[in-house]
This record gives sequence, structure tokens and C-alpha cells, in this order.
Amino acid sequence: MTDPTTSVADALVALRDRAPLVHAVTNYVTAGFTANVLLAAGASAAMVDNEDEAPLFAGVADAVLINLGTPQPQLREVYLATASAAAAAGTPWVLDPIAAGGLPWRGALARELLEHRPAAVRGNASEIIGLYRLTGLDTDGRNGSGRGVDSSDDPADAVDAARGLLAYSTAVSASGAIDHIAHEGGLATVHGGSVLMTKVTGTGCSLGALVAAYCAAVDDHGVATIAAHTHATVAADIAAETATAPGSFAVAYLDALHAVTPDDILRRAHIEWQPR
Amino acid sequence: MTDPTTSVADALVALRDRAPLVHAVTNYVTAGFTANVLLAAGASAAMVDNEDEAPLFAGVADAVLINLGTPQPQLREVYLATASAAAAAGTPWVLDPIAAGGLPWRGALARELLEHRPAAVRGNASEIIGLYRLTGLDTDGRNGSGRGVDSSDDPADAVDAARGLLAYSTAVSASGAIDHIAHEGGLATVHGGSVLMTKVTGTGCSLGALVAAYCAAVDDHGVATIAAHTHATVAADIAAETATAPGSFAVAYLDALHAVTPDDILRRAHIEWQPR
Amino acid sequence: MTDPTTSVADALVALRDRAPLVHAVTNYVTAGFTANVLLAAGASAAMVDNEDEAPLFAGVADAVLINLGTPQPQLREVYLATASAAAAAGTPWVLDPIAAGGLPWRGALARELLEHRPAAVRGNASEIIGLYRLTGLDTDGRNGSGRGVDSSDDPADAVDAARGLLAYSTAVSASGAIDHIAHEGGLATVHGGSVLMTKVTGTGCSLGALVAAYCAAVDDHGVATIAAHTHATVAADIAAETATAPGSFAVAYLDALHAVTPDDILRRAHIEWQPR
Repeated sequence: MTDPTTSVADALVALRDRAPLVHAVTNYVTAGFTANVLLAAGASAAMVDNEDEAPLFAGVADAVLINLGTPQPQLREVYLATASAAAAAGTPWVLDPIAAGGLPWRGALARELLEHRPAAVRGNASEIIGLYRLTGLDTDGRNGSGRGVDSSDDPADAVDAARGLLAYSTAVSASGAIDHIAHEGGLATVHGGSVLMTKVTGTGCSLGALVAAYCAAVDDHGVATIAAHTHATVAADIAAETATAPGSFAVAYLDALHAVTPDDILRRAHIEWQPR
Repeated sequence: MTDPTTSVADALVALRDRAPLVHAVTNYVTAGFTANVLLAAGASAAMVDNEDEAPLFAGVADAVLINLGTPQPQLREVYLATASAAAAAGTPWVLDPIAAGGLPWRGALARELLEHRPAAVRGNASEIIGLYRLTGLDTDGRNGSGRGVDSSDDPADAVDAARGLLAYSTAVSASGAIDHIAHEGGLATVHGGSVLMTKVTGTGCSLGALVAAYCAAVDDHGVATIAAHTHATVAADIAAETATAPGSFAVAYLDALHAVTPDDILRRAHIEWQPR
Repeated sequence: MTDPTTSVADALVALRDRAPLVHAVTNYVTAGFTANVLLAAGASAAMVDNEDEAPLFAGVADAVLINLGTPQPQLREVYLATASAAAAAGTPWVLDPIAAGGLPWRGALARELLEHRPAAVRGNASEIIGLYRLTGLDTDGRNGSGRGVDSSDDPADAVDAARGLLAYSTAVSASGAIDHIAHEGGLATVHGGSVLMTKVTGTGCSLGALVAAYCAAVDDHGVATIAAHTHATVAADIAAETATAPGSFAVAYLDALHAVTPDDILRRAHIEWQPR
């Protein structure tokens, strides 16, 4: 990969053509917003987390998201069986390890889910650092400091952890003010966006779902992950041109996810790429 | 019934006068949007799905919605007991069999719920075709093809299935680009709306809830079902006059559900009616 | 306390400085809106209701909300353990006893939760009257009449009940057209707001969460409770200047929660204060 911007613009065309159905096993706080983000961007969504249905549906959908935002005990087996079924069916799946570094129960679950080899992992910096630590591969013993869903670490500080998690996943993103996306070819940083993203619940969760949608549309999951972050970032840039407060920003962000064109990507995206 | 438009405008007056409380046992993805649609339209909402409370509440509320969007195993008995309690109390209840044709666990549940005689059934074409097939009354063996919450069938192709389901329910709607509503007197089609409805999660689910609200306001559940679809369609038409993307459309749709008057219904509704 | 307006404006400064993390064990209908309200107002939110995580998290967060909107059976022990953990850790917690007066299962639970001494209780008039009756302290035997989440009583009629509940809590609010907040020093009424608040789901639930946020920012929980109600009311006043229907009002309300300044509070707040 050289400059990924052209590939990202092509990926947007592929997303809209394919209109992939994303099976999201996600949290109840942001499920509605996540579905709206997928629909606005050009994909489709179904939230199926019944134990009898979810593994079956993972073989029918085009991609799967597993987001640990509100992990009820009875969902533990659902997450694991769904990830396993997705892997068995060849359906790309994405892990969003919400707060995995800060809460031991879901941390152990996130660690176990990695064994089913997600196409991509998306988290904030604290979550990526925390998850990497749980793998035992982090011989430095550095430690994320996030308490909850908010990150108290900078994405730049999560790059080593993101690279380390490539032992399990094709692409790993630590998103934040500047999104950092590691994959075997190198490291991409996606610049832009708006601080209002942090004032709207579900912008991170829905970004994980968008990564899953792109993984169904584009075979190269590194490109897919960069494309999802770029689509979201350019949409946020457009939204911030008209909205100055969180309520109207969330509306404008959905509008922009829908309206953004491949040409907007080519003109507005700011992606830096460092080969390995 | 001749042209139902006048009855539909009268039903809107009755809805606003009665302000019915809808007890919704629904999914966590669209529960918030559904409550907002009910409030905007002129009704009231309470989501009660605790096993000790839901059957009791079905006798207190003015109408009940059972929507199978995210059916956790522990909710199975809740759905059945709530439908049974609603039937026993004479509270009209509506079945929204989300994805019933595509997922066997909930398909069997939807089939079982029919025995409690809903006032109305609302689904997309794939769901109505799939549910009818599960009754065993469909001797043609034709088969809905929807994978998830989205329909891959045209509502016009679901008319036979909708008519077949009148064995269980007073009115059956297959909603989509053109809504088709069957009841014993004939078939109504409601024209209009916007393709942006398909880009906002919960427009279908909230329509089922609105059918329940109208069934509490109007004794003729055929008229009630047509009225709910017309109210939603006219609101979508109004919203589409100002909004061109999904985020702002959802906001404008709620505004229009609130603002629409009986006179708007008389001037804008496009309902075709074929007696049996 | 004399006129609380200056204290309320100072509390807004403290809220923005502290940016407290509110741990919300709440319902799935309004969880997303509640998180957005907290973020817009200047706080942060995490919804953690797993039995292994919630008590732990109550010691990490700055404040806790327990809202009984959709109380699944398996959450019963989670609510109790979380309230107990919050009390043990000295984390202020707020009880929002949705529909407690109308539904016996959750009524008994709300009564039991009072023993863990919330910093504040927030409800509508029917809920406050209903909860007080359940304590057995209401020797008058007067009775709230709410069926569900909507109040059929006037907040002014809940003042005796609110005062009675001070046996368990530092501050008790009955919110509605005029919010009534009782604490040991006296009674505050907060005037203003918009009837459109009643047409948007979650305005009450998110107000309970905002009380929790303020209780983390201000040691005097009476002032904190008045401040949360005033912040919400002034934001609603601002929103109602531009929005005339529920969809756009909800957006404008989030924007105004974010934009409102201490100076706006000083100029616009209408708080009446009666010392005991």
C-alpha cells in the first residue's frame, strides 16, 4: 500500500454497491444510533443476540460486529458462539472491546474472543492498551488508564499495543483525536474530525460497526478499516461546518455519512501512511 | 367501507382525544424512537417487559404492542403471557413479527402468538409471507426471502399472505414503498412516503406501535390500521419536503407526526380501496 | 440557603470543571438519550449493569444513577448490590423510581433501595407519592394515580410525600410543569421549561442522571438537585425559542444543555425558595 486515499474512495463505492448486512451483537445504549449510522453510510443492520439465533445469523449476514458495551451474563455464550460461527462461515467479524482494560469480567471475555480471530479490532487508546495487556504479550507491562468508555490515553501511545494485537487480527485501530490503524503493511493515521464526536454517545461504537460493513465490501481488511475511519472522519468534518453543539452535530453527522461521495473522500481525506 | 380517507381523518381526532397509553414489549434497538413516535403522534408509551409486571400492565394499558425485534430467551414467556393477558382483558394488541420468516426460533414464537388473536399484524412483505408460511395455511408453499429486518419482497406480493393471516387477526399490513392492508372488508393501499424511511432505523417498528395506539382510539381495527399507516405516510411526505438525508429526516418525521392535522390527512392522503 | 440561583450558577461551573463520570444502571429505552444529555451538559456516562461489574464500577465512578425503567428480574440483585456498593464507597447515588407506585414488583424494589440512602430521589409526582406510600410513613393513605411513566398528579400535590422521603434521602424532587425539590432546609420550586419536554422520551430519566452528575460536582446535594433541574429547565426554555415540535425540540435541548452558561442561569433561572 502507498497512499491509501484512492483505495478508500474505491471502498466507499464498493460499500454502497454491496450494501452489506451487518449483524451487530452490541449494547443497548448505542444500538439505535449504530443502526442509523450503518443505514446512513450505505449498509444495513440487524441486531440479533438470542442464543438460538445469533450463531445461525452470523452465517447469513455479510459481516458481524461484537461490541462489549453492556455484556449481560447470559450474553457471554452468545458472543463466543457468534464469533466462532462467523469464523467458521468465513464472515468477517469485528471486535469492539468497550472498557475491556478497566473491567475484569469483560476483559477476560474480550481476551477469549480474540482466539476467534477478528478481521479487525477497534477501540479507544485505553481499550487497545488494556486488551493488549490482557494477552500477556505486553512484556513492558504498560497499562491503560481508562475508567470507562472514555479514553484517558492518547491514540499515539496505543500504537505498540495495536501492533501487538496484530497477532490476532488483520487490522487494529485505536481511534481518537487522530485515529491510528495498524496492520501488517504499516501504520495509517487518519486526521480530522471534530471534538463534538466525543459529546455524542455511540460515535465510537458505530465506527466499529462501520468497520465491519467495510470488511464485507473490501477484501483487504486493512484498507476496509482505514476506509471506515476516513468515511466517519470526513463526515464529521462536514457536520462540523454547520453544527456547533452535540444535538445538531449528531443529526448533521448522519446526514453527512449519507451524502459523502468518493470525490469528497479524495478532496478531504487526510491520511498519513508509514510502511513498516 | 368506501373511501376510508374521511374515517382516517376522524381517527386522528380520536387518537389525539384519547391519547392512549401503549404498552410496548419491544426491542432495545428502536424502543426510544418508538416511544418518541408515539408521543409525537399524540399517544403515550410505556415499555414494560418484566415477567411479573407485563401481564398485569397489559390490563391497565389502552393497547399492547408485541415486537419480536430482539427476543431474549427469558422474554419468551413474557410475550406469551402479555398477549394472553391482553386478550383476556380485551386490550387490543398488535403483533410485529420482525424477521419471523428468516429465524426459526422467533418464527415459532410468532406462530404461537397468533393463537392469542392480535387486533392487527404489521410487518414488511418478507415477514408477512414468512409468517403465513409458518401457519401451514399457505398451500402454495411460496416463501419470503428476507434475511433480516429488511424486506426483499414487494408488499404487493404479500397480499395473499396478508389475506391468509386474517384467519388470526382483524387487520394485516405488509408495509413498504406502498403499504398494503388487508381486512375482511377488502384491501387498502396507502401510497406516498419517502425512501428515506428505509434509512432510519425503527420506522417500521414504530409504525406497529402506532397501529396499536390507533386500535385503542378506534373500534374498527381495519380503519385503525389504515389510519396509522396514513398518519405515518403523510408525515413522511411532509418531512421529505425539507429533509434530504436520514438524520434530518428522522427529526422532521417526528415533527410532522406531531404537526399533521386532520385537514392534512384529507388533502394529502392517497388511499386506494378495493372491496372484497 | 437563601436564593439558590447564585449557588446553581456556581454548580454549573463545578460540573464543567469536574466532568463527572456517571455510572447509570438504567433502562434500555432512554439509555442513549441519557448518555447524550450527560455528555452535552458537561459530564460523562457509562452504563454498566453486569452483576460482576456494576458493584465494582460504583466505586470507580463519580456518581451512580439507579433508574427502574425496565427492571428485568436478573437486574434486581444488580440494583441492590450497586446501591450498596455506592453507599459503601461514598459515591453519591440517585434513585429514579419509574412507575414505582403503579407496579408492585418494582415498587417493592424501590422501597428496598431506599435503605441504601440515596443522595437524591427524582420522580414525577405520581412516582414520589407512590413511593412514599410504600414506606408506610404516609399515615394519610393518600395515593398516587399514575398508571405508567406519565404522571397524573401535580407536583405541588407531591410536596408532603417528597418531604416524607427525606427520611431516606438528602433531596427529593417531584418534577413536572413546575419542579418541586424538598430538602431539609426547605422547598425550592423551579419554574419554566416547555410542554414539549413531555413529548420527548427520556427527559425525566436523563434529569435523574443529571442530578447524579451534579451530586458528584457539588457537596451540598440539595443545591446539586436544584442545579440539575435548573440547568434542564433553562435549556428547555432556550430550546423552545427555536423549536415548536418534538423532534427538533430534542435536538435543540441537547444543544442548549451544552451551550448554557452560568450567566444564562443567572439571567433566566426562576427559582422560588421557601425555608422550612
